[in-house]
Amino acid sequence: MTKNQINTKCRLAVDAMGGDFAPKNIILGALDALKEADFQLLLVGDRSKILESAKLENVSISEEMIVHSSQIIEMDDTPTTALKSKPDSSIVIGAKLVKENKADAFISAGNTGAMMAASTLIMGRIQGVSRPTIGASFPTIENKKCLLFDVGASVDSKPQHLFEYAVLGSIYAKEMYGIDKPSVGMLSVGEEEAKGNEVTFAASRLLKESKVNFLGNVEGRDVLKGTVDVIVCDGFVGNIVLKFGESVLTLLKTRIRKYADQGIMNKIYALIVKKVLKASLSDMDYQTHGGVPLLGVNGISIIGHGSSSPLAIKNMVLRAKEMYDKQLIQKFERALIEYSTSK
Amino acid sequence: MTKNQINTKCRLAVDAMGGDFAPKNIILGALDALKEADFQLLLVGDRSKILESAKLENVSISEEMIVHSSQIIEMDDTPTTALKSKPDSSIVIGAKLVKENKADAFISAGNTGAMMAASTLIMGRIQGVSRPTIGASFPTIENKKCLLFDVGASVDSKPQHLFEYAVLGSIYAKEMYGIDKPSVGMLSVGEEEAKGNEVTFAASRLLKESKVNFLGNVEGRDVLKGTVDVIVCDGFVGNIVLKFGESVLTLLKTRIRKYADQGIMNKIYALIVKKVLKASLSDMDYQTHGGVPLLGVNGISIIGHGSSSPLAIKNMVLRAKEMYDKQLIQKFERALIEYSTSK
Repeated sequence: MTKNQINTKCRLAVDAMGGDFAPKNIILGALDALKEADFQLLLVGDRSKILESAKLENVSISEEMIVHSSQIIEMDDTPTTALKSKPDSSIVIGAKLVKENKADAFISAGNTGAMMAASTLIMGRIQGVSRPTIGASFPTIENKKCLLFDVGASVDSKPQHLFEYAVLGSIYAKEMYGIDKPSVGMLSVGEEEAKGNEVTFAASRLLKESKVNFLGNVEGRDVLKGTVDVIVCDGFVGNIVLKFGESVLTLLKTRIRKYADQGIMNKIYALIVKKVLKASLSDMDYQTHGGVPLLGVNGISIIGHGSSSPLAIKNMVLRAKEMYDKQLIQKFERALIEYSTSK
Repeated sequence: MTKNQINTKCRLAVDAMGGDFAPKNIILGALDALKEADFQLLLVGDRSKILESAKLENVSISEEMIVHSSQIIEMDDTPTTALKSKPDSSIVIGAKLVKENKADAFISAGNTGAMMAASTLIMGRIQGVSRPTIGASFPTIENKKCLLFDVGASVDSKPQHLFEYAVLGSIYAKEMYGIDKPSVGMLSVGEEEAKGNEVTFAASRLLKESKVNFLGNVEGRDVLKGTVDVIVCDGFVGNIVLKFGESVLTLLKTRIRKYADQGIMNKIYALIVKKVLKASLSDMDYQTHGGVPLLGVNGISIIGHGSSSPLAIKNMVLRAKEMYDKQLIQKFERALIEYSTSK
């Protein structure tokens, strides 16, 4: 394979060993994606385990689909240590495939920290990026999306980092959601310009002078309100909001279950509630967007929930394909130069 | 009235002019509280407006209940400016009543920032408190409460501030919720000790060496899980979590309304959903706890939603009474000395 093949298929590497239900869910999800899109699938992981699982599930995996790796980074392994001690792990091998231009993207539902570290250290960063960032997509009242950056790639962000998140987030929202000039807000404790902390004040100054479509401060309630398309914040704050948000559905489910336990009428009512909530909150299902992209690394890297279902895996793979088709990495690179210059 | 009266009734000052539905909701709520508890009510505000509203609502307000003030700090006034320019406002007068020992507590649903500033500057801080803090109470899966400090009294907290929040929060949880040794967690991006930012690391060290029942890091999902009784965080983070949390119910309501609009069966189903959610999430109704206490100031100060209903006002007043009966201020003072010493 030469380094710059032309007219070849997009090659998507998927970590077959990552996640609580690997390799089964990974294989099923990746094969489902193959039915919907045209790409070359590379399953990174233990050959015999992949073939064994495929046999059990009665699906066909060809030898060319497998990139063998002998080691597995477990969910509770310490990321940086694991990268060194497990050089033949599926996560390290997958990131290397992208680095060496043998794959166009890498997708994993494995150890999030290891996936972040491997992508950053092996693929490297895009020029102009100080710190890669993970974005999460929130549903909004108006059935739109609100993207929050950063939700945990790093903490103690500097103003420059928040500025970069805004640029990466703008491009992502534009290309992936088709929003012409994505509006960007700074997550803060009040809408007024005087509300915020030292970092948000300095980052807002940078954004105001740039070509980012920056609308100023937004509050916690604006995430679900969908006041802006992209919200930037320190990864410490974003991670807490994301996990808090996920737990709201857990609370809701638990409370409804308890209600259902209080008699036969309650049980019937609870069934109706489940049906209505499922219909009304379908876009809150993590499976629909699958995983979160790690933006700012020099390659497409998508990180999924450990508990990813085949549907979640399928959507992660399809999203990676879309990012490739839309040449996101190249667009990020250009934008980081272009957006920094004054209006 | 001598300064140290003994065996007098608890005197609760209520800002009759504060909130979107003042003085009506304030008067009605305060009078409802009087039916349930024995205290001396002081309505701070414009005498003629108070009497006029009472007449309209057909309730009786005696002259001794009114502490006249001629000015009103509006919801959109800048707090510190308003304190200076409106020295005869109900908020300034109310805080002064506590400072001058003419009232034992002050309750307002008015301008939050002005109420915080007036309480802090006029009542002063308890010895050992660097910054007062506002706590919010979250419902949990197990139908307990989880208290979050700080939810917006200040940002850019230092480790010492988080330590003080933990002490104040512990005493509050112990006295008001009857929890023997309230467990305290540090809001962070992971449970592991190595996860966090510079401030949480340093604050955790202080807490580990103290008598606070500190259990280490908790995550965003632990707020509603109820993993610990009290969670401490910087006011920037807490405020965003609080407002995000409030908006979840708005999202839910909007989505269900949209569902209901899609046909007659949907409308019937939606009614059932509302009924079930109301029963299952009753503790999520802000009215039940009314307002949030500002802890660390040298007096009882409770701040309510601008849109406070009479029920919310009633519960705020009753809570102030409970804080007075349980001698919270004195207990805070003692705890700040006691908890700081090593285990």
